[in-house]
Amino acid sequence: MSTKKIDIYPKEECGVVAVYKQKQAANLVYLGLHALQHRGQESAGIISTDGNHLFRFANMGKVSEVFSENKLRQLQGDVAIGHNRYSTTGSSFLRNAQPIRMESKFGSIALAHNGNLTNSWKLRLELEKEGSIFQTTVDTEVIVHLLARSKETTFKAALIEALTKIKGAFSLLALTKDALYAVRDVNGFRPLVLGKKAGGWVIASETCALDIVDAKYEREVKPGELIIIEDNELKSFFPFEKCKESLCIFEYIYFSRPDSTIFSRPVYDVRLKLGATLSKEFPVEADLVMPVPDSSTVSALGYSTESGIPFHIGLIRSHYIGRTFIEPDQKIRDFGAKLKYNAIEAVVKNKRVIVVDDSIMRGTTQRKIVKMLRSCGAKEIHVRISSPPTLYPCYYGIDIPTKSELIASTHTLEEIKKYLRVDSIAYLSIEGMSEACGGGHNYCMACFDGNYPVPLDSDSADSYSNQKTLFEEYEVEEN
Amino acid sequence: MSTKKIDIYPKEECGVVAVYKQKQAANLVYLGLHALQHRGQESAGIISTDGNHLFRFANMGKVSEVFSENKLRQLQGDVAIGHNRYSTTGSSFLRNAQPIRMESKFGSIALAHNGNLTNSWKLRLELEKEGSIFQTTVDTEVIVHLLARSKETTFKAALIEALTKIKGAFSLLALTKDALYAVRDVNGFRPLVLGKKAGGWVIASETCALDIVDAKYEREVKPGELIIIEDNELKSFFPFEKCKESLCIFEYIYFSRPDSTIFSRPVYDVRLKLGATLSKEFPVEADLVMPVPDSSTVSALGYSTESGIPFHIGLIRSHYIGRTFIEPDQKIRDFGAKLKYNAIEAVVKNKRVIVVDDSIMRGTTQRKIVKMLRSCGAKEIHVRISSPPTLYPCYYGIDIPTKSELIASTHTLEEIKKYLRVDSIAYLSIEGMSEACGGGHNYCMACFDGNYPVPLDSDSADSYSNQKTLFEEYEVEEN
Amino acid sequence: MSTKKIDIYPKEECGVVAVYKQKQAANLVYLGLHALQHRGQESAGIISTDGNHLFRFANMGKVSEVFSENKLRQLQGDVAIGHNRYSTTGSSFLRNAQPIRMESKFGSIALAHNGNLTNSWKLRLELEKEGSIFQTTVDTEVIVHLLARSKETTFKAALIEALTKIKGAFSLLALTKDALYAVRDVNGFRPLVLGKKAGGWVIASETCALDIVDAKYEREVKPGELIIIEDNELKSFFPFEKCKESLCIFEYIYFSRPDSTIFSRPVYDVRLKLGATLSKEFPVEADLVMPVPDSSTVSALGYSTESGIPFHIGLIRSHYIGRTFIEPDQKIRDFGAKLKYNAIEAVVKNKRVIVVDDSIMRGTTQRKIVKMLRSCGAKEIHVRISSPPTLYPCYYGIDIPTKSELIASTHTLEEIKKYLRVDSIAYLSIEGMSEACGGGHNYCMACFDGNYPVPLDSDSADSYSNQKTLFEEYEVEEN
Amino acid sequence: MSTKKIDIYPKEECGVVAVYKQKQAANLVYLGLHALQHRGQESAGIISTDGNHLFRFANMGKVSEVFSENKLRQLQGDVAIGHNRYSTTGSSFLRNAQPIRMESKFGSIALAHNGNLTNSWKLRLELEKEGSIFQTTVDTEVIVHLLARSKETTFKAALIEALTKIKGAFSLLALTKDALYAVRDVNGFRPLVLGKKAGGWVIASETCALDIVDAKYEREVKPGELIIIEDNELKSFFPFEKCKESLCIFEYIYFSRPDSTIFSRPVYDVRLKLGATLSKEFPVEADLVMPVPDSSTVSALGYSTESGIPFHIGLIRSHYIGRTFIEPDQKIRDFGAKLKYNAIEAVVKNKRVIVVDDSIMRGTTQRKIVKMLRSCGAKEIHVRISSPPTLYPCYYGIDIPTKSELIASTHTLEEIKKYLRVDSIAYLSIEGMSEACGGGHNYCMACFDGNYPVPLDSDSADSYSNQKTLFEEYEVEEN
Repeated sequence: MSTKKIDIYPKEECGVVAVYKQKQAANLVYLGLHALQHRGQESAGIISTDGNHLFRFANMGKVSEVFSENKLRQLQGDVAIGHNRYSTTGSSFLRNAQPIRMESKFGSIALAHNGNLTNSWKLRLELEKEGSIFQTTVDTEVIVHLLARSKETTFKAALIEALTKIKGAFSLLALTKDALYAVRDVNGFRPLVLGKKAGGWVIASETCALDIVDAKYEREVKPGELIIIEDNELKSFFPFEKCKESLCIFEYIYFSRPDSTIFSRPVYDVRLKLGATLSKEFPVEADLVMPVPDSSTVSALGYSTESGIPFHIGLIRSHYIGRTFIEPDQKIRDFGAKLKYNAIEAVVKNKRVIVVDDSIMRGTTQRKIVKMLRSCGAKEIHVRISSPPTLYPCYYGIDIPTKSELIASTHTLEEIKKYLRVDSIAYLSIEGMSEACGGGHNYCMACFDGNYPVPLDSDSADSYSNQKTLFEEYEVEEN
Repeated sequence: MSTKKIDIYPKEECGVVAVYKQKQAANLVYLGLHALQHRGQESAGIISTDGNHLFRFANMGKVSEVFSENKLRQLQGDVAIGHNRYSTTGSSFLRNAQPIRMESKFGSIALAHNGNLTNSWKLRLELEKEGSIFQTTVDTEVIVHLLARSKETTFKAALIEALTKIKGAFSLLALTKDALYAVRDVNGFRPLVLGKKAGGWVIASETCALDIVDAKYEREVKPGELIIIEDNELKSFFPFEKCKESLCIFEYIYFSRPDSTIFSRPVYDVRLKLGATLSKEFPVEADLVMPVPDSSTVSALGYSTESGIPFHIGLIRSHYIGRTFIEPDQKIRDFGAKLKYNAIEAVVKNKRVIVVDDSIMRGTTQRKIVKMLRSCGAKEIHVRISSPPTLYPCYYGIDIPTKSELIASTHTLEEIKKYLRVDSIAYLSIEGMSEACGGGHNYCMACFDGNYPVPLDSDSADSYSNQKTLFEEYEVEEN
Repeated sequence: MSTKKIDIYPKEECGVVAVYKQKQAANLVYLGLHALQHRGQESAGIISTDGNHLFRFANMGKVSEVFSENKLRQLQGDVAIGHNRYSTTGSSFLRNAQPIRMESKFGSIALAHNGNLTNSWKLRLELEKEGSIFQTTVDTEVIVHLLARSKETTFKAALIEALTKIKGAFSLLALTKDALYAVRDVNGFRPLVLGKKAGGWVIASETCALDIVDAKYEREVKPGELIIIEDNELKSFFPFEKCKESLCIFEYIYFSRPDSTIFSRPVYDVRLKLGATLSKEFPVEADLVMPVPDSSTVSALGYSTESGIPFHIGLIRSHYIGRTFIEPDQKIRDFGAKLKYNAIEAVVKNKRVIVVDDSIMRGTTQRKIVKMLRSCGAKEIHVRISSPPTLYPCYYGIDIPTKSELIASTHTLEEIKKYLRVDSIAYLSIEGMSEACGGGHNYCMACFDGNYPVPLDSDSADSYSNQKTLFEEYEVEEN
Repeated sequence: MSTKKIDIYPKEECGVVAVYKQKQAANLVYLGLHALQHRGQESAGIISTDGNHLFRFANMGKVSEVFSENKLRQLQGDVAIGHNRYSTTGSSFLRNAQPIRMESKFGSIALAHNGNLTNSWKLRLELEKEGSIFQTTVDTEVIVHLLARSKETTFKAALIEALTKIKGAFSLLALTKDALYAVRDVNGFRPLVLGKKAGGWVIASETCALDIVDAKYEREVKPGELIIIEDNELKSFFPFEKCKESLCIFEYIYFSRPDSTIFSRPVYDVRLKLGATLSKEFPVEADLVMPVPDSSTVSALGYSTESGIPFHIGLIRSHYIGRTFIEPDQKIRDFGAKLKYNAIEAVVKNKRVIVVDDSIMRGTTQRKIVKMLRSCGAKEIHVRISSPPTLYPCYYGIDIPTKSELIASTHTLEEIKKYLRVDSIAYLSIEGMSEACGGGHNYCMACFDGNYPVPLDSDSADSYSNQKTLFEEYEVEEN
């Protein structure tokens, strides 16, 4: 039976790109989405406009699978927005693929959204009571219905009205036949950067998407800022009530690409410092420092440089892992980790090794990696984590397990050490992390300290869940 | 460029089936849809219920292509409804495939609809102004939104309220977890029949769908009747304002299967009489009578029997024609007709032949058939049409071209004769047709006489069209 | 487990077409294959030549599914051959799709073949012993290997040498860059006709394939004739030892299209006479004559005309049946027949009906049809078969069951009558059939009289089967 | 026009795996192929045996795409072989996918082959003259035909006879119902390793495929060795004439995985030494050492360690590149390299950087990388190559361009420096490379020094090409 049951709290990690006034804008958006592929690999979509119509294509899969030359050619016009989506739940339906298009009294409108709303179920319930019919389970559709029901007479006013009603994290792109809109929530949870390219603009989640299309990085879209680009002119507005910034620190720790600049700071520099600080806080005598590739490579380098202990590649990561992999009946030791990693005996045999990783969620993968290193003859294994213990889930768009699944939330450091079977383990301190990220107090570190800048409206989600069967629940799948 | 432009007046011919309280109801609905395949071959869908959930699958294609054993198995439960769709326009998108499912305060609801509303664009415009967002271009979605916005507290009341607002032709099936609903519009344009099968009921567009599942024909669902089957009990209601019946006479002429009984009369009998009456009205001396297969076979038999002129198969029809056929650069004479028909020289050579056809729309196919018969040596060709000249389009669900394309609407009989290059041509009279159908005055013959029982709300459609781009207009196609 | 086990005696029914010197020849071959679709619906293929190269495309499916405009465009040149294949066994693999192409010392060669060899297993065994490696299970590959091993220096000589070694039924087309070859075996089992089209030629299994491309029927390719068309000139050779003709009479009874002319006689005329003779031999008092559509329609008309008993359509045949159809757990009476046929109560109720059918193999379908007619109220049912009892299998390309499955081979006429539950049953006499077909003694009637003109080399097939696992046996299927 | 033209010299890089006596052997082979994915990503296939039958599945695509759980389940038995294929030419047809299966007098036989024969065209020509018909363009089929034509009475003898006739590089696996065969050519060009797993054996191209299935590395299969595993016993034979070893040194430089041990030496160690020797031979003052990831990472580490200059990640490599990527009309500077690499300004700005790469073929990618680094502000760029100049093509299975395309073959060092626009460039010496690889003289370095241990039989290839059109040349593609 392959009908799908969806999670009531869909969490989404996404990448967004917009290109304004560039010949064949869809083609550049496609390249930008390729650069942001790490932010979402389940679906990809582009909506473009030639000033008369909005053209749309979206499908399940990676960017290179979704778009053909023929499809890009049909996405006409010199303005376009795109979206990569990663759903952390089972509800990876095609119709959830973004950007979303709607017809409205303001004409055709396209929306692409990165983030997670905290009051979407409450709003959804209210809208459904008034007769709105939902087609997807993505937060973006709540915004769509708020726009459709707005009594405002301009799209700008309706957009501001709708965004005032929603709460949580959003870096949003909107497209009409005449203008491009980009908004970042007042807390600024998710990154959004602005670039310039001869005669036009490029907006994207990270600067690596500017690099690939030869756009020059200008600045961040600021928390609470609404940018409207119309008639080749960029205007900036701040229509929302101000509040304290709370930039997602996990973008630095793990999620963003090391070649990107976000929140006005190169990720590479931050990670080097995370590693160096970790070395200062928790030094240990050893023969080599090695990363769990790829996300920990730079912080491991930082650790090595600071400590003077040689850097080595003790684990090889395979990049050929598809969506599913079949486990043999005849059990392979540490199967899941083995598909992805292989330890190198020539590197670790009879060595005291420091293994640097960015974070530990459940601890299961790390445990398998340690076993692999042991069976290759590692003499001592010291785990160093370039962030504090992950103790709380995220409500703003990062896929972090629930509290009960987080090993650091349910076990002491000593217990974790035993579980992983390592000679020592240490986590970077909150202060050390904060300092490495510039020392400011403008970060959201809720996953580490439990201080949620915007509370989750969880009651409505539960009551919604009690009242309703989501339409996706019993859809018979294509295959 | 393969973006699709849709027609503002989507015309739909459809078949619907419902099965109540039969083990594996979806499987029986599937067979019923197979029997109704002639009513729509573009998409097929089934929604079933096990009393707890509604299960849905629909896709583009014929019934045998859409459903696999695995899919039918997942459509659980002992109540189900199904739908075959033929769209006469380009907008044959998957999301237009029925049955439609919606989540509402009444729980999950499924709808399948055969017919054409005459005020759907007006209602659509009003609903959109109030913030409803449409996802398809099918009339059924108008009903869905009316239901979603109803302030009634029971589904029955909301359904009656919604159906009171719509105008035109509809034979509608609705399904909730608890009950099955069947409604036929007050004019009774489209057929809908009720059958009994041990322990349950079957409802379908034509009796051939009852035959295939061994259900016994009971009676028609009556014009204006609402049937509710709940807790194994069938209740009948007449909640709508009565009006004069106007059954679609074209179902007898062409559309229904010759082995069906609709409007309480066997189609075979009616067609035999149409042919016999035609022979009485327009006799001609000839060597043989031949039909344009398959729809005219029975009326040709009627003509032959009445006239005493031998019946022969002078044209073979191919049943292997797929969705598209590729014309060679090197032109083949009468290419389109030749793919479908081949004339038999052994039958027509040196013969005076009477060709019986059910109707003439543009006349292009008939012209090619006549050429084929001539090139096979037919000495005389007399065309006899078993219905009056088709002069007007249909607004109630039959795919008839616009007035300007209808040859009988723009040309005299003499001109048609010349265009077809035949020795004589004659159409059955309106009186003859009426008499063959039972003589009653309860038929809609608008395509022949222009008397539309329910006027088309065309102003709203045009104004809708002027204001809006339909969302489907610039969707980039999958292939 | 879906690995396939193949039958050691693959039987094949096929259609072949060749077009010489016509612009875009592949396009015309495609139309010819469409007209011959009834001869094989499992795979279709075309090989064309532009004088320099041979272009090939073949795939599983019907002609309209296999070829797109794009593919036809790539099949360049003004000479082409095509093939429709129906395999009567499970081995319907793609690589069995014809035409076959080979590279040889004579250059590229294409082969398309209709018929069944009687010594293919013996030849295969010999060839494999000498080191030939077979890739398919089709007879045609035996010819390919004989050509590859020939010591002759011209393709014509090698072809004659190879064809001299094979025995059985074949209507063969071959194509090189320079010439088109057509051969019919000395017995002339399968039909093959020659047509003329301005500036070129068309060769096909039946004349209906000439009609669709506007080619004019010239004559049969004669038994034992080798036609070579080269440099725009057609040459005829008779290089094989003569023997008595044995044209397949079953092509008239059932297999060929009623609008074709084969063996120099229109199929329609023959079928009318089969019906008329049947009426003379086995008259019966009744209210109506009805065919089992579509293959028996013309002979039923012949019976009706001769007897004066009215002709009616008492069974409707569905043309929407796909490759598989799913039977419900909840059994439907006469399920298999019901998918294909529906009886019309309005026609048969309280009537004495004569049901004309072309032949009875296992009798299962006829039994179900009789049940359907009974449940529609038929008072008397008299079955009349327009051929003699089918008693023996065919080794020359017609899909007739084994002797033990043939009802007439294992039961008396009285038993068959009881099994079918009919009031009377009668088969046409061998003399009556022979006379209707022109009275000559040049037909193969082996399925009726057991006189096989060419014996099956069955020992070698069995010994082959004992020694070897066929490579197809354990191929894991794609789906 | 998408008919394919193939190269007359198909070069293939491949990975092979065999598993003997392990429950569900196909599942382990599948994991081994996953570990060897870097050796070939165009097609993957497995043949297994349960002692009675050989089961086969192969398809185009990566391992994780080709095999489903269902397919692996059908590949029954406890012995299996598998193959990954990368074709360097256009002829990536499905039927070229390995392992190949043949039926022969020795029963069913499966073959999987890594390497390139130097006399395959000559043998092919001879075999075709004698009547063999080839179905693929892979070398393996030559072996298949030699086996089919052998007069030997045992498979072992026939295999030895066939392998004695072929010349060049081959690491071959063969499978019958009863036994597993592994052979490495007398020169030992390609690696092949033997591992042990409780109760059975595993043989693979590299040790990383042993690691993933928990097999313990035992030893290399030796040059000229034939291993037969039958009745749970491994026997070793050396039936071929001995000759000097010539192991492919390029496996160390680039092709093998850094976590593998081949030719009895860990690849990681060799690469570290290549980098260290390079630093000793060509030191330069600079701020950082960076690799062109991923293949040069270890040698860059070696350079950094030896020189004491800090190691950094100055280029990020994307792992999401699909088979094709669409270039915008609006040209992107250094498009091809940009899809794969992005330079990090935070790392290289105002720095003197040493870029370590493993080899330079055409130089085009390196030129683009240098441009990227310059535009990120690198002050000086010094390129260091961890192998000597690549001057000659490879005939033994590595995809190296022709001499005229190799920049080092057609340009001086000074010209290359100018073309790449770098401040300095240096290649490792042949002696330095040789020493890093263990100093022995048993390597094939033909791509560097032009000393080909086995000459290419190129005359026959050319004459073959002159005489024949390969059958694949004008196959119309599926899409």
